[in-house]
Amino acid sequence: MTGCSAPLPSWNDGAVKQAILTFVERTTAKDSPDFVPPPERIAVFDNDGTLWAEQPTYVQLAFAIDRVRELAPRNSDWKDQQPFKSILEGDVQAALIEGPQSVPQIIAATHAGMTTDEFERIVRAWLGKAHHPRFQRPYTDLVYQPMIELIRYLEANEFRVSIVSAGGTDFIRVWTEKTFGLPRSHVIGSTIKTRFVIRDGRPALIREPELDFLDEGSGKPVAIYKFLGRRPLAAIGNSDGDQAMLEWTTGASGVRLGMLVHHTDAEREWAYDRSSSVGRLEKALERAHVLGWLVVDMKRDWRVVFPFDVSR
Amino acid sequence: MTGCSAPLPSWNDGAVKQAILTFVERTTAKDSPDFVPPPERIAVFDNDGTLWAEQPTYVQLAFAIDRVRELAPRNSDWKDQQPFKSILEGDVQAALIEGPQSVPQIIAATHAGMTTDEFERIVRAWLGKAHHPRFQRPYTDLVYQPMIELIRYLEANEFRVSIVSAGGTDFIRVWTEKTFGLPRSHVIGSTIKTRFVIRDGRPALIREPELDFLDEGSGKPVAIYKFLGRRPLAAIGNSDGDQAMLEWTTGASGVRLGMLVHHTDAEREWAYDRSSSVGRLEKALERAHVLGWLVVDMKRDWRVVFPFDVSR
Repeated sequence: MTGCSAPLPSWNDGAVKQAILTFVERTTAKDSPDFVPPPERIAVFDNDGTLWAEQPTYVQLAFAIDRVRELAPRNSDWKDQQPFKSILEGDVQAALIEGPQSVPQIIAATHAGMTTDEFERIVRAWLGKAHHPRFQRPYTDLVYQPMIELIRYLEANEFRVSIVSAGGTDFIRVWTEKTFGLPRSHVIGSTIKTRFVIRDGRPALIREPELDFLDEGSGKPVAIYKFLGRRPLAAIGNSDGDQAMLEWTTGASGVRLGMLVHHTDAEREWAYDRSSSVGRLEKALERAHVLGWLVVDMKRDWRVVFPFDVSR
Repeated sequence: MTGCSAPLPSWNDGAVKQAILTFVERTTAKDSPDFVPPPERIAVFDNDGTLWAEQPTYVQLAFAIDRVRELAPRNSDWKDQQPFKSILEGDVQAALIEGPQSVPQIIAATHAGMTTDEFERIVRAWLGKAHHPRFQRPYTDLVYQPMIELIRYLEANEFRVSIVSAGGTDFIRVWTEKTFGLPRSHVIGSTIKTRFVIRDGRPALIREPELDFLDEGSGKPVAIYKFLGRRPLAAIGNSDGDQAMLEWTTGASGVRLGMLVHHTDAEREWAYDRSSSVGRLEKALERAHVLGWLVVDMKRDWRVVFPFDVSR
């Protein structure tokens, strides 16, 4: 499609693509009764399963598992201590369901205890060598080409586009400028506490093993308002964790866009919804039918899934 | 100076103005050995006393006091209950030193218990009618013309400019787009908790009477990293509450700008520093001499203080 100026070339023609185009036209055309001034044009996207693949597991969990393995030689007690024992034995599911402290313990061991600068270097090094188990490509290759086009299309129409993710803000920010063309400040995610210290005579921020904010479910509207100061005009997600964000976005007056990605394409990507442990989609899909949110049928609506499909 | 294209027209020629121009030139000229790519060009400004006047009291405190008076008829017990009793009797200092819970109690009574939309309307209505006691003008007239020019100059050189304030994020955001031309998302301040609710069938965020984050002192580097994901290239403040932010900014390698506004002009504005209860400047000024931060002498360096001086 090089040289083609029509927007959203990787989206198949149909009701969903048309509804997106209509939404943007109605809210941005100067003579539209539904015109919205640019500062109020806020669009928020969930990350895992909405902007990039989240199967067979969240990318950040893959990072944490690899990091546990890497740190194991320096933590010899882990081989007898849960949840690390199960991870080192290759049974991640067992590690996660070991107890309510499993995830906090894994995060504390892998995401805390270093400066913010050091953590960035660790994530960057991992991304440079890790490969997705099915596609055997760097994880950042597994972004959805239609979503990148949608981000660019919204930006071209003076929308401010932010990522709103349950994933870690500082994990996502390492790759989002290059991968999505979105500034770091446009990433709103979960955070752990940091502490300002003078270390070796130099000021730094230390990452503490304590949750600061969990950006999931009803936390998403709270975080969006805290970071952006406005209710969005458009919200795009793919799981029940995005329901509150979409309710809040579309529950205001005026033209709003709520959209869910439904993973229906087992061949090119994955097919899953209500019974999936990753990216479970059940209640939000029911609300989509009640409230008129768009539902993207990945198999039907996307001509291309990943950027590497374009050149295949 | 209309039609004049030289930057910073309200700054007098001298060492401070020259140092600002040199800093921007060194970090942005393509052939400079100190060139910094645009995504890393972050500049942060404190608000009270740095971007607008903070005497005789912080503007947000004036708002809270007026709000206590407005709500008093519906809270008849306040006339016998501290800290409200002292406020209603006109003795704000007594109210503030009544006890460690005075400020949280005043904030809970005046800044919480409504939706975010309702709070915005309350602040907007107050700004429309309140006047500064000395200048008899709306508070938003008391912004510093040289700082507005500095913001525009930095933006013209592809800096992202954010406000980093101990004041309330949601209070500041109401007026910052119009007054400073800065988007709401470029305001990083103190926050109270909000909670997502469905009220009368509509989703909303309720402001809770509980502190979420105090963006002061060592909280400022923490908040900047949380919101922007980067250490700034330039930090500008005016009080000891800005010291950590400037230490962190200038403590990294490469060319950095740390700058303090010293209030030295009792005639056009106010003269105060180490003995002031509002905007106390003592330790940070000592650090400025040690670390080479610029110190703006308001009387010497600013040709104009307020925008209304330009037309006088």
